[in-house]
Amino acid sequence: MRLTLDDPDLVSLAAGFTDNASLPVADARDLLNELFASKTRGRAALQYGTTAGDPELRRLTAERVAALDASAAGPGEIRRDPSPDSVLVTHGSQQLLYLATEALCDPGDIVLVEDPTYFVYLGILESHGIQGRGVRMGKDGLDLAHLESVLENLKRSGQLSRLKLLYLVSYYQNPTGTTTASAVKAGALELLRRYERAAGHPVYLLEDAAYRELRFGGEDIPSALVHPRAAERVIYTGTYSKPFATGARVGFGLLPEPVLTTVRRLKGNHDFGTANLLQQLLSRALSSGRFDRHVLELRKRYAQKAAVMTRAIRAHFPGEVKWEEPRGGLYVWARLPGRVKSGTKSPLFERALAHRVVYVPGQLCYVKDPTRPQPNSEMRLSFGGATESQMRTGIERLGAAITEGR
Amino acid sequence: MRLTLDDPDLVSLAAGFTDNASLPVADARDLLNELFASKTRGRAALQYGTTAGDPELRRLTAERVAALDASAAGPGEIRRDPSPDSVLVTHGSQQLLYLATEALCDPGDIVLVEDPTYFVYLGILESHGIQGRGVRMGKDGLDLAHLESVLENLKRSGQLSRLKLLYLVSYYQNPTGTTTASAVKAGALELLRRYERAAGHPVYLLEDAAYRELRFGGEDIPSALVHPRAAERVIYTGTYSKPFATGARVGFGLLPEPVLTTVRRLKGNHDFGTANLLQQLLSRALSSGRFDRHVLELRKRYAQKAAVMTRAIRAHFPGEVKWEEPRGGLYVWARLPGRVKSGTKSPLFERALAHRVVYVPGQLCYVKDPTRPQPNSEMRLSFGGATESQMRTGIERLGAAITEGR
Repeated sequence: MRLTLDDPDLVSLAAGFTDNASLPVADARDLLNELFASKTRGRAALQYGTTAGDPELRRLTAERVAALDASAAGPGEIRRDPSPDSVLVTHGSQQLLYLATEALCDPGDIVLVEDPTYFVYLGILESHGIQGRGVRMGKDGLDLAHLESVLENLKRSGQLSRLKLLYLVSYYQNPTGTTTASAVKAGALELLRRYERAAGHPVYLLEDAAYRELRFGGEDIPSALVHPRAAERVIYTGTYSKPFATGARVGFGLLPEPVLTTVRRLKGNHDFGTANLLQQLLSRALSSGRFDRHVLELRKRYAQKAAVMTRAIRAHFPGEVKWEEPRGGLYVWARLPGRVKSGTKSPLFERALAHRVVYVPGQLCYVKDPTRPQPNSEMRLSFGGATESQMRTGIERLGAAITEGR
Repeated sequence: MRLTLDDPDLVSLAAGFTDNASLPVADARDLLNELFASKTRGRAALQYGTTAGDPELRRLTAERVAALDASAAGPGEIRRDPSPDSVLVTHGSQQLLYLATEALCDPGDIVLVEDPTYFVYLGILESHGIQGRGVRMGKDGLDLAHLESVLENLKRSGQLSRLKLLYLVSYYQNPTGTTTASAVKAGALELLRRYERAAGHPVYLLEDAAYRELRFGGEDIPSALVHPRAAERVIYTGTYSKPFATGARVGFGLLPEPVLTTVRRLKGNHDFGTANLLQQLLSRALSSGRFDRHVLELRKRYAQKAAVMTRAIRAHFPGEVKWEEPRGGLYVWARLPGRVKSGTKSPLFERALAHRVVYVPGQLCYVKDPTRPQPNSEMRLSFGGATESQMRTGIERLGAAITEGR
């Protein structure tokens, strides 16, 4: 397998890379030259900053989240705009996920995740000895009836005191592409609230909005921050990496107290603050309007790439493979008939490698949950990193690998 | 106190910032322009990389450490040069310290630290529920006789199985400015080896060489990597932030297996790799020779600033305050008579604030060790961030605060 993965002709539909051709080289160069045109600004970018992050970037971040919510929320839905003081800037939103989970969970604690979910988050849980429990998903995100039954089961079995978090990838979810409806977020918050008394402590909603800016279809949906009590129970994370430049790793969180204080202290231990140079670059990208212009271009670009991938899927996959038209993000989630296994040890995965194409087996995206068997008939296909021609080739090869197994 | 800290006239001799005036604004601008002159290179800098780090930067790093050791080592002392494969690039060396400690230690485990040591490292230990034990220092670094007695006591009390690491800030130590002699590193490794059998597992030496490049006096000393068995037991960490630009947070570790594999996996969970833009900047700084030229300038600059501070100390501190002439790094460690307390709640600290000057109380740099009382009569004075005129003012004020208390 190693040999195959080194093959330059191998098409990877697995990597979560972003589109290479549209990376903002000219924007970054111009912004950095503006930054370094002044000695004072240049030095500030090359000096340590504070652990919480650059004040200007924190202000712009609070404003941006407020603006996104204002444009998406229904009348009267927004209680109050987030404060720049609640913002913590991190090396990508991944770091915020790590810090928040580290801050809130002890080994043996329980975190609820979507079934399936972002597989790197499962790595975070595993490395801390945290148990995950899967909550089923419908077309609007979390299945609230199932969430309630999971909570009720935890309560009955006396495990609710170990529950600390519900982790939700709310926009164009990695891996399924599903977006959580606003009412579902409100319902989830309401359910968590209802079980808090029995838990004996706050149960937070960790909303991972990493793909929010990459919307190219479908409805505009506000974050969980607009709902009642959100200010006390929602940890919202977002990123500037995916919508601008993944090589400039800047993400952020909006956190309620006392989580914010704990997470900021941990961030101090991790790296005492996100690289100022990256923060200044992003801050200027945002305030100059270049970020917005880039995001608009990027949305068109991913819409186009998604269309190329889905056209190829229609042409080359047998009809028994189910999938949804993506409306944002970077992924198509393909569901094979239950008898066809897609895991790394499956004949299909091996046939795909023989055809020189690789995907992320769906199995990797399911938490090890003792209450259900691990599904193993899906695949995550990314239209982020591959070129259009690679996607066409890759999907054709994958279609052949699927068809050969029938 | 908060009000005082916001006072623009307050002189901070506490902050570990680097010299602002010598930050390489022109170098950074030129290097980034070179980088973005090519679309291919520019895109690579703005795209995700690998978790381990940019291959070119890892090669340059292995070479640089080898060159530093070659110039410092005695004849025949070097067994083999470090491999680029052993290098992991991180967001500052702080992150490597965090990752290595997280990888090797469980709550309740024991780490040996210098007495005193880098206080942020103590924060890492605390946040993981790890116990620290202080090892006394002499003028050549660790007191090996005391290290042996600490190890022997751990063995006798049946706690040796909890010992995982010895943490050593080996060059111009933060906070004391002490450099560990080569023979002391060899002796420490030898002692750790002797107690490994009783510990039942490897006991690693975590060598933090953060200030190594900032040498402006004294002997050139090789790292612990040159000693026998170092390849299996030394975790070496260094940084490009302090000697180049603290706003471009790039550090690194050279790690033995199996620690490397574990730490790389954790790094994947933390942020799946150091920002490529920063890595490419540092890689070009190193390969173009600009980094070396900058470091030479910086050494002169800090030599000058250290001289300004020590001249002021001679002029304004009473003779009963003891301190050493720094030979590198950013700090002077001042020892007051035992009856004078320097902690945040001491009259001296309050008088210093009233005089609008702040230092790091030595107490913060001592691990909470049940086997000895916490020393509380020292202060760390930094000549890194303050300007020359601020240092003169600050030391004069501090001298007045000390003298008033007599």
